[in-house]
Amino acid sequence: MAMAELSPNAHLAGVPGGRWRMHTPALVLDLDAMERNIAAMAAHCRRTGQKLRPHAKSHKSPDIARAQIAAGAVGQCCATLREAETLAAAGIAGLLITSPPTGAAKLARLMALRAAAPDIAVAADTMSGLAALADAAGGAGPLKVVVDFDVGTHRTGARDAAAVVALARFAAASESLEFAGLQAYYGHLQHIESFDERRAAVKVQSARIREAVAALTAAGLAPPFVTGGGTGTHDIDHRDGAIDELQAGSYVFADAQYDACALTPDEPRPFAPALFVQAAVVNDVHDGHAVIDAGLKSFATDGPAPVFAAGAPAGATYRFLGDEHGAVDYGPANDRLAVGAQLACQVPHCDPTVNLYDAYHCVRGDTLVDIRPVAARGNP
Amino acid sequence: MAMAELSPNAHLAGVPGGRWRMHTPALVLDLDAMERNIAAMAAHCRRTGQKLRPHAKSHKSPDIARAQIAAGAVGQCCATLREAETLAAAGIAGLLITSPPTGAAKLARLMALRAAAPDIAVAADTMSGLAALADAAGGAGPLKVVVDFDVGTHRTGARDAAAVVALARFAAASESLEFAGLQAYYGHLQHIESFDERRAAVKVQSARIREAVAALTAAGLAPPFVTGGGTGTHDIDHRDGAIDELQAGSYVFADAQYDACALTPDEPRPFAPALFVQAAVVNDVHDGHAVIDAGLKSFATDGPAPVFAAGAPAGATYRFLGDEHGAVDYGPANDRLAVGAQLACQVPHCDPTVNLYDAYHCVRGDTLVDIRPVAARGNP
Repeated sequence: MAMAELSPNAHLAGVPGGRWRMHTPALVLDLDAMERNIAAMAAHCRRTGQKLRPHAKSHKSPDIARAQIAAGAVGQCCATLREAETLAAAGIAGLLITSPPTGAAKLARLMALRAAAPDIAVAADTMSGLAALADAAGGAGPLKVVVDFDVGTHRTGARDAAAVVALARFAAASESLEFAGLQAYYGHLQHIESFDERRAAVKVQSARIREAVAALTAAGLAPPFVTGGGTGTHDIDHRDGAIDELQAGSYVFADAQYDACALTPDEPRPFAPALFVQAAVVNDVHDGHAVIDAGLKSFATDGPAPVFAAGAPAGATYRFLGDEHGAVDYGPANDRLAVGAQLACQVPHCDPTVNLYDAYHCVRGDTLVDIRPVAARGNP
Repeated sequence: MAMAELSPNAHLAGVPGGRWRMHTPALVLDLDAMERNIAAMAAHCRRTGQKLRPHAKSHKSPDIARAQIAAGAVGQCCATLREAETLAAAGIAGLLITSPPTGAAKLARLMALRAAAPDIAVAADTMSGLAALADAAGGAGPLKVVVDFDVGTHRTGARDAAAVVALARFAAASESLEFAGLQAYYGHLQHIESFDERRAAVKVQSARIREAVAALTAAGLAPPFVTGGGTGTHDIDHRDGAIDELQAGSYVFADAQYDACALTPDEPRPFAPALFVQAAVVNDVHDGHAVIDAGLKSFATDGPAPVFAAGAPAGATYRFLGDEHGAVDYGPANDRLAVGAQLACQVPHCDPTVNLYDAYHCVRGDTLVDIRPVAARGNP
């Protein structure tokens, strides 16, 4: 898609300093920071011997997926069929759909997708879901199935090792399915702020994962890989050894939600903030705050508040003021901002923030260098 | 846009009962309920003698705007230039941009928009903003300006009656501007749950509005109209008499956030829930809850939780479980749901929920009758 269709800021591409004259609000991706984050996670995985299959639900972008794969990732995780379709259409292989798809409409769409992504793997967590997958896959050759194990998030996943074995046995026995691996994602542990507490919680679930792997192995169904983990546990998963493939996604952007966590024992923040919402001051008449043009429709609201990264006075904090507006609360110094001033806000929770936008405004320093689509946004 | 491009559910249009077999999550609009809401607000405004210029930031849809205007609305309010551009391209007149646009990029876009919407009016709230509007409007004939007065939301708007008069005087004296009216929107009062407390709070601001109108009138600048108010105050504004044009938007959908408020003294809920997110059960192995495929990316998270309107056991409540998932907590009866069951969830806060979707799935009863774009979603 042409830049001009993606954004009213296309005319600023390449213009020196153009980044700070954009039509706001705009989603801004700092390519230098993102590339450093991709390199840092790739180096981590080389050191630890883990495979990395980053989660595309964070970025929804074939461009970012390609950069991750170029740095060594084995493919991409997808939460939705739309994400998988978009990446497959861009020629990206090694896709794993991590949310078990259910219902006739989704299964039909999944089977259509196989033509473009013959190596696609899909999570399954119930016997009825697995039977439906087997029926749908029919004679098109075995569909790779990853058995999903609930390790405490109580979202998707089989409940216990016995259920995991039953699912794997069904998949292995079906001519239209292939038992390809085990998924064990402890999403509820990713944001525990203390490294030691997070590690202790992971250990409890790691014991359950090892129990499931042992039961599978005893049944002659040793899983080819165990996939799970995230940005919050990336430096814990390898220490415990229960997961050999990492699904981390948020590391590529380093949002404010993860900034509250000590991600490694030595370096709390190994990844640099790379994703921002740029906003402009639209009203400066108030004593304690300025008003900017980014509110409930510009940021995810499930996590912490946005954090000012550039353009705001020291000590200023963000406060939601409605669908289209937010306050820059000046704080004690009371340094005022004037109408027209532009600010960069580190995104609070990256995944649902990205989901609000059509395009990444890609910058290097103060220059807008490219505008790229959030290609898999929209109908899940 | 063809239905098939808007949604994977196009093939279900017209199929009896097809509504309950949709690819989920999907945004569902009950046309019968919406039409009743539009008729009820139109009747209210006829009774009270107020004009109605509904806010398009709620629906972002030319189809809904047309239905409101057919019932007597004088035009549409818009928060963003994208909304105004989309409605103007659909031939809708009587547009008012309620958020003062600032900065060269937005002003250039506004002036381009005037060709399609010559009668467009735009809010202004600072002298520098007004001067920039006057410069941009140049020789293209007077641009209608509505002076925005801050009545307690502390978002946009001039601070006091003196500032309002100064802005109106500037607009009236400028050859390229026309002083068209006064805007006074008390957004912070819309969701006060008690009718009497809400009314008392409105009275305080009404006194300020009357003071500003008196100051304008004394200066020979009596405003042609005073616009403001919302769904929460629609049955209060006319009693106090300070506003003669209503900007209500949410009434068209009646979301869960407004259901907590007593909207009129006699009938707490004069509008019927018309907007739903339809979701399906994707995991049923847990004891206390089922898991559905609608989470942080499917609902606004700034308001109350989604409310089950169909398909859930009595007493069940919604809980967020991550980007793509939510829990149906069964409650004391513990009636279980099975994988594949579909549920309708009344939306929590309608405006930022609509903003997440590409399309309305329009239903009458159990039949999907049309799929219409959320046309002004995207770049603001």
